[in-house]
Amino acid sequence: MPPTLLVLDAEPLPRLGRLTGRARVEHADASTLAERLPYADVLLVWDFASHAVRDAWPGEGPRPRWVHTASVGVDHLLCPELTASDTVVTNARGVFEQPVAEYVAALVLAMAKDLPRTWEAQGRREWWPREGLRVAGGRVCVVGSGPVGHAIAGSLGALGLRTAVVGRVAGPGVHGPEDLDRLMARADWVVAAAPLTEATYGMFDARRFGVMQPSARFVSVGRGALVVEGALVEALSKRWIAGAAVDGFVDEPLGVGDALWGVPGLIVSPHMGGGTVGWRDELAAQFVELYGVWEAGGALPNVVDKGRGYVPGR
Amino acid sequence: MPPTLLVLDAEPLPRLGRLTGRARVEHADASTLAERLPYADVLLVWDFASHAVRDAWPGEGPRPRWVHTASVGVDHLLCPELTASDTVVTNARGVFEQPVAEYVAALVLAMAKDLPRTWEAQGRREWWPREGLRVAGGRVCVVGSGPVGHAIAGSLGALGLRTAVVGRVAGPGVHGPEDLDRLMARADWVVAAAPLTEATYGMFDARRFGVMQPSARFVSVGRGALVVEGALVEALSKRWIAGAAVDGFVDEPLGVGDALWGVPGLIVSPHMGGGTVGWRDELAAQFVELYGVWEAGGALPNVVDKGRGYVPGR
Repeated sequence: MPPTLLVLDAEPLPRLGRLTGRARVEHADASTLAERLPYADVLLVWDFASHAVRDAWPGEGPRPRWVHTASVGVDHLLCPELTASDTVVTNARGVFEQPVAEYVAALVLAMAKDLPRTWEAQGRREWWPREGLRVAGGRVCVVGSGPVGHAIAGSLGALGLRTAVVGRVAGPGVHGPEDLDRLMARADWVVAAAPLTEATYGMFDARRFGVMQPSARFVSVGRGALVVEGALVEALSKRWIAGAAVDGFVDEPLGVGDALWGVPGLIVSPHMGGGTVGWRDELAAQFVELYGVWEAGGALPNVVDKGRGYVPGR
Repeated sequence: MPPTLLVLDAEPLPRLGRLTGRARVEHADASTLAERLPYADVLLVWDFASHAVRDAWPGEGPRPRWVHTASVGVDHLLCPELTASDTVVTNARGVFEQPVAEYVAALVLAMAKDLPRTWEAQGRREWWPREGLRVAGGRVCVVGSGPVGHAIAGSLGALGLRTAVVGRVAGPGVHGPEDLDRLMARADWVVAAAPLTEATYGMFDARRFGVMQPSARFVSVGRGALVVEGALVEALSKRWIAGAAVDGFVDEPLGVGDALWGVPGLIVSPHMGGGTVGWRDELAAQFVELYGVWEAGGALPNVVDKGRGYVPGR
């Protein structure tokens, strides 16, 4: 009897054909997850926007021995019972790093060259040449020292920016939190790419936007709750900073009435930085590969430190 | 008596204070250039958008011994009489390469990540996540093997694209024109950065857009007349190619009634790729430096091969 693989679905479903005969695949949604979890050996959280696991995780008794999430962040599924259990949690490290780094480079260059206003001017049929900013030689502070943060620093460094990476603790090529304010104060660009944990929740607040230069710009590709959104709006409206681009929000999707849509100087991106053509296939292929390791009793890669809330190391 | 330096002006004027006592600085515009040229030792073409030099250059008799243009392209000033004369022509090589390369990277990444439609969606307050393209691993064909072309290939190569550079003749790291159609047919991105000469006039025509992949995109940061604009419009409207971004046009500025403003899939950029904050100071400082070399009877750098229409070599 093969193990039971429960998939928390989102559309479109992953292609798991290669697991035929190796797993009994069952499906759940938020309403059925709680009743099915006790009978599953493995849970694949394909719907990475769902908080259903946190709500449905059983307090005691049978539960999956392994949970894999098709995302980098794990804040949406960790709960005290899951953290305390011996269930192994793995994430999609390896799939999103380069796309997110390219997305950050796209946003930084678009802001430097003022492309949004060029499109507005095109819409008005107005020929409006302006001076752009040179990005090479500028300073960027990347907050987050995991593979996403390092990929971002790599891409921006390749474009000639001077990069500093800030992590939870200082290490080779990584500044500790004690350097954060000083680096933010010197930066032309600040990029938020840290995992959402108790230590990072709301870390970009009014005080931190206040130390930035008025000419500096802020980019966030992390979870929305890293940023105190009201403080960012205030920093933009008071011109504490020159602009911002955000790809993750506290409440997604943003509703049509959300004030964030219309904040001058704020680029609202609909949480698409990690999604490139073919990514669902890559995520499915990664899970199938990890399943083979788990099946054979091997040591899974990408194991989340549930206490810290992310996969340690680069 | 110091030499007479005639400046073909545009606003704002360059800062040439360091030449006080070393040159008698006079100014001209398109209407006065012809009468003043015979009395000038040096002509500084500060208004790089003007074609006045071509029209005003004296056929015979006294004329400047040196013409410097605050631009990379020289097509706007070369005429048979100037080409045949012993007047030395220099250009602004060294100032624009990195800004233009960054601008191309900005346009490529913006198209890959579909940023224009993200801004449109933000204007409509619509949350519309989509899949972007990964640029790393894609192929780019850069047409133009001067320092601008090489800087573009360098920036895009640093982002992980596979680059091929095409020049007037094959050489180390440069493909000859015989490879152009084949490279364009394989490319995900084609970037036009060649000088405008008799050999390149209208080189991007219906046939060349026809060899490109339907998924490929075209970027031009060269002179407008490299491109047969009607053929580009046709290629976009018939979906021969997936998109284009153009920073230089045959008739600049585009008038409000120009059909190019409204072509679906075409990003109209108002010839601003080379202009970054501080560039006018850089151009002026470069001219002052060259003036010192000329004054001392030294060998000027950046000398244009007037027969070819550009400064040879990287």
